[in-house]
This record gives sequence, C-alpha cells and structure tokens, in this order.
Amino acid sequence: MERILIIGAGLMGSALSVHLANNGHGVNLWGTQWDREIIKEMEDRRYHPALNVDIPENINLFYDDQLEEAFKDARVIIIAVIAKGMRAICQVLKPYFKKGQIILTVSKGLDDDSLHTMSRVVEESLPQGLRGQISIVKLGGPLIAKELAKDTYSEAIFASKDIEAAQYMSILFKSPKFRTSVTEDIDGVEICAAFKNTYAITMGILEGIEGGYSNPKAALMARAVDEMGKIVAAFGGRKETAYGIAGLGDLYVTSLSGRNGRFGQLIGQGKSKDEALRLMDNATVEGLAMTLNGYSFLKALEGEGRINLKEELPLFYQTYQILHQGEGVEKAVEEIWKVD
Amino acid sequence: MERILIIGAGLMGSALSVHLANNGHGVNLWGTQWDREIIKEMEDRRYHPALNVDIPENINLFYDDQLEEAFKDARVIIIAVIAKGMRAICQVLKPYFKKGQIILTVSKGLDDDSLHTMSRVVEESLPQGLRGQISIVKLGGPLIAKELAKDTYSEAIFASKDIEAAQYMSILFKSPKFRTSVTEDIDGVEICAAFKNTYAITMGILEGIEGGYSNPKAALMARAVDEMGKIVAAFGGRKETAYGIAGLGDLYVTSLSGRNGRFGQLIGQGKSKDEALRLMDNATVEGLAMTLNGYSFLKALEGEGRINLKEELPLFYQTYQILHQGEGVEKAVEEIWKVD
Repeated sequence: MERILIIGAGLMGSALSVHLANNGHGVNLWGTQWDREIIKEMEDRRYHPALNVDIPENINLFYDDQLEEAFKDARVIIIAVIAKGMRAICQVLKPYFKKGQIILTVSKGLDDDSLHTMSRVVEESLPQGLRGQISIVKLGGPLIAKELAKDTYSEAIFASKDIEAAQYMSILFKSPKFRTSVTEDIDGVEICAAFKNTYAITMGILEGIEGGYSNPKAALMARAVDEMGKIVAAFGGRKETAYGIAGLGDLYVTSLSGRNGRFGQLIGQGKSKDEALRLMDNATVEGLAMTLNGYSFLKALEGEGRINLKEELPLFYQTYQILHQGEGVEKAVEEIWKVD
Repeated sequence: MERILIIGAGLMGSALSVHLANNGHGVNLWGTQWDREIIKEMEDRRYHPALNVDIPENINLFYDDQLEEAFKDARVIIIAVIAKGMRAICQVLKPYFKKGQIILTVSKGLDDDSLHTMSRVVEESLPQGLRGQISIVKLGGPLIAKELAKDTYSEAIFASKDIEAAQYMSILFKSPKFRTSVTEDIDGVEICAAFKNTYAITMGILEGIEGGYSNPKAALMARAVDEMGKIVAAFGGRKETAYGIAGLGDLYVTSLSGRNGRFGQLIGQGKSKDEALRLMDNATVEGLAMTLNGYSFLKALEGEGRINLKEELPLFYQTYQILHQGEGVEKAVEEIWKVD
C-alpha cells in the first residue's frame, strides 16, 4: 500500500482517487480553491454526483488550506489540474517537493506562455537542488474519467525518463480491468496528449459538414495519427508512440465523445467560434487554446527546420486556419483532401 | 477516359461503378448469376435502391451470360466479389485475361482452401504465359459502399508491386472528395483488409460486455492495430501499413458500424454463435470465417517461427477461442487484459 496525494478534485482527479483507493492504496485528495464545494459534498455524502460513484473510506479529503497535511506521508504526487493551471499550481506545491518523490502529471496540453509540455513545466518548477532527485512521470492513453471511476476495462501508459518510476506507477494503477504499459518516450506521450485535442476538433468539423458518415472520419483518423507521429518525431520523440495507446487510442476516445468534437461539429455546420461556444454554454474547449499554442509550438519547430507545417501537417494547419484565421470550412477541407 | 470492367454487382461493385462513372470513365458493370435481379433493376430504373443513387448513363450493365461483351475494350478489371467467391470467379474470368490488363481486387479476406491473399489467388489464376504481364493491384482503406456512392469525403490506398499500375489506378479513382495514395506493400494491405474483420468482432465483444463505454474500445483499437502490424511484418510486409489508412483507417470504420461488430456485441452479451446469427437473420458475418482462416494462416506462420500466436496476438487468439473453441467471453477478456 502506498499513500498517494492527488492534486485537484476535478472529474479526473476524483476518478483517479477512486481507482487508486479501490486498488487498495491510501489516497489524499486535495482540492484547489475552486474545488471547495465538491470536496464538501464528497466529505458529507461520501458520494461523487457527476461520477455517480461512492467515495471509498480510504480516500482522505483535504481543502485548499490543508495542503501541508495533505502532503504528509505521501511519496507519490499526482497533479490533475487543467493544463492552463499547471504552472501556477506547481508554484503552490514547490515548498513541499522533496527528494525521492514521484510526480505524475495527467494534464493534457501545452503551457500557454512557454509552450512547454506539462512534464517540463513540473521539472522547471523543482527547486534547484531537487532536479534529478524527483522523478516525473506522464500518464497517457484514453481515459474518460466517468468510465475510469466505474472500473470499465481501460488501458493507460506511463512515460518517464526514469523507467523504474514509470514501472512503479504502473504497478500502483494496474488491476484486472486496468491494463498498463510503460515507455521512456515522455515527450512523445506529452505531444500526443496535447495535440489530439486539435485533431478531435478537425474530425468534428468533417462530421459537421457531412454528418453521420464514417468514411471521412476514418480517413481523418489515420491522417491525424500520422501527423501526430511526425510532430512527435520532430520534437525528438519516437513516432511509434503516436501509433499506440497514447496517440491513436486517446484520439479514438476523444473522437467518439467530448467537447472538442462537439465544438468542431458546430464549426463544420457553419457556426462562428463565438456562436459555437455559446451553444455549448461557454464550456471550456481545450482544443481551441491548444490549437493556438500548438501553432506557435510548431512554428518554432519549423524555424529550426524540423518540420514543414503547411506541407507535412495539413490537418493541423487547416484547423488552425479555420479556428484562428477565419478561413471557411469548405475551403479548408478541400485543401486537406487535395492529393500532393 | 478509361473503359473499366467491374466484376460483381453487389453493393461494393455497384458503388465503385457509380464513383468511377461520376469521375468520367466508361464503366461496364457485370453481374454474376446472383446479381441478375439487381442488374435488371438498375437497367429498368437507372437507380440503385440499396445505395439510394441514380445509375449514371456511362455505366453499361451486363448479365452473367454477357461476360465476353463486358470485357470488350476494358483494360482495367476490378474484381468486387466476396472473398469466398474469389477463386471460382477467377476461373470464369481466366479465358479473358490479356497482356497489358490491370486487375484491381477489392475483396477482403483469405481464400478458404489455400489461405492465400486475394491478390495471390488472382495471380495464381493467370495463365502461365501471362504471369508478370498483367499487373495486380489491391484496394485498401475505409470505404463503406453506401457512402462511396454518395460521394462523401473518402480516402483509399492502392497497393501493387508494380507501383506504376497502382499510380494509374489512383489517378482513375481520385477526385476532389476522394483522396488516394499508393504503396508497394500489397501483402500488408491484404493482411489488414482481411484481419480487421476479426478485430471488429473483438471490439464488438467488449462492447457487448460493457455497452456504450469508450475506454475499452479505444484500448482495443490501439492493440488491434498493433497486432495487425505484427502480422503484416511476420508475413513480410511493412508494419507501418497497419498504422495507416489500410489498417487503422479500415478498422475504425468497421468498428463504428457493420455486421462484424454487431455479431461481436451479441457474443459479448452471452449469445451463442448460432443465436447471434439467427438474431441477425443469418446475414454473412465475414469475420467469423476469417477468424478460422486467420487462425490456420497464423498457425502456419508460427510453424515457420515467424510469430507466437498466443503471446504476441492475444486479441486474435482469444477471439478465436471464443468463436471456435467455446471459451467464455469473460475468461477470454480477462486474458486479453492481463499484463504480461
């Protein structure tokens, strides 16, 4: 049994808590200032309404002002906040980082300012003396929080340059219905986790234009995986990572459900960005910010001669053109479908 | 403009006719003895009821006793019969094969008797003097016939050892909404086209056990693509073929709809094979025969030391166990989910 601290009581943080508690571990679930209500509700009812599961006894709940207590005895720290909040939360956690800890990041995206991956943001936040003393692991793969909390069959991949740390996390998570694997390619997993949000929008756009058909979605799926492989390789990772659970697996889940796809559909039907967001009650569409960040990220790689955005990544490029340059969807899809 | 002969007026043969006719080519669509009614209906009404499209004027229709006329002026021959009928139809066509023809095969599966791929069956049927004088091309990728006939956005890949023949077919097919690519890896495309039928059943089984969830399907999708890559490589093809439109693209389409998935679902819900087939009005489930053929095919590869079926292909192996060895689905899925 391990004592695990989970940072962030959103859907994913809570679902991970339930899974790990069911696996026999002690879990400290710490909520940010935005999580006070849900922490209170879990405390009072030992039940999570959105996940529709009971909260096991071996989950201890902590409010935002109880961070020090939450860290007590925890050697494994899982950061499950949204990508946008990553840098800020790392500054909050910094005083509690200690030699020998393992930090697992779950967030999917790139940092708005630095365009760095989530793991790099964590690494940069470590106090000077602790760099190399704390192992950083990335969780990748298709995990819908609600399904994870219900213990459906699932699979995930743990990535770290410290492969033993990845293996250790894998052991904590695995169960008869939760399959795990490990890889050293943390950069590859980070890229897939971030960019699949954009590609889910692309697939949604086609669905909006040609609703209900499968041929176009299947064609895009294959090309999106191919593009993710190219981005991973340009960034120094292994392109095979995109062909596995972290890339195609995660994109598959995202393409079947979720806000990115829904948003894309509305865009494909001719709605403006603002209209689409309004129709979605202004929910956060992760792929929208990600496409902006991804564009800058890829422009930098292009500047180093490592990739040609427009030629090699037509899906990403045209999705950016639609979302952030006002290009019409029909024109963009025409470009995507052109044979070189 | 090219004069193209299409052999077989099933859904796929008819849809390909419509696509090629719309692309400006002259099409001779020849129906087998089983296609007499649909040929008559297309002739009378210039309309295809199941595809729900008009039959363009530049499609000439031929009955089974008009094969000689149908071959007239046609240099490109597309064979679009089911895999089971491939060897027999090739014997019927044999007298009309001529130097300089290109034969495109569309059928997905392995020959029941020889376990050879469709292209090899065609090759073996060529008269001795014509071997190497006729180019054989394979069509791969996610193409649902009804969608193809309606000209939805689609993508396909043409595979041939004679890359110029593949490029030529690609040019005949491509259009603003139909994207094409070519490869020399005809064995890889054949393997993907055949084996995805089994993997669609596997995905259906999981859906039957845990209906409506996406995490399990996404996990299986990634592993199925990985297994297809291993089979392709063991057979001497390029495993990358499985990661592209011919492998993951085709499996994606098959997993979203179709009889293999439906059949798998019923099996996953605890129905016997016979019950499941009865509930599907005894429709042909291609993956069922394919799993038998595939097992023998893989056993032969295993005998040559090229693959370890049970260890390297747990999805395929367990699906075979369920369908043909009476293993319970729960037990099989448990095995699939085990970490080595």
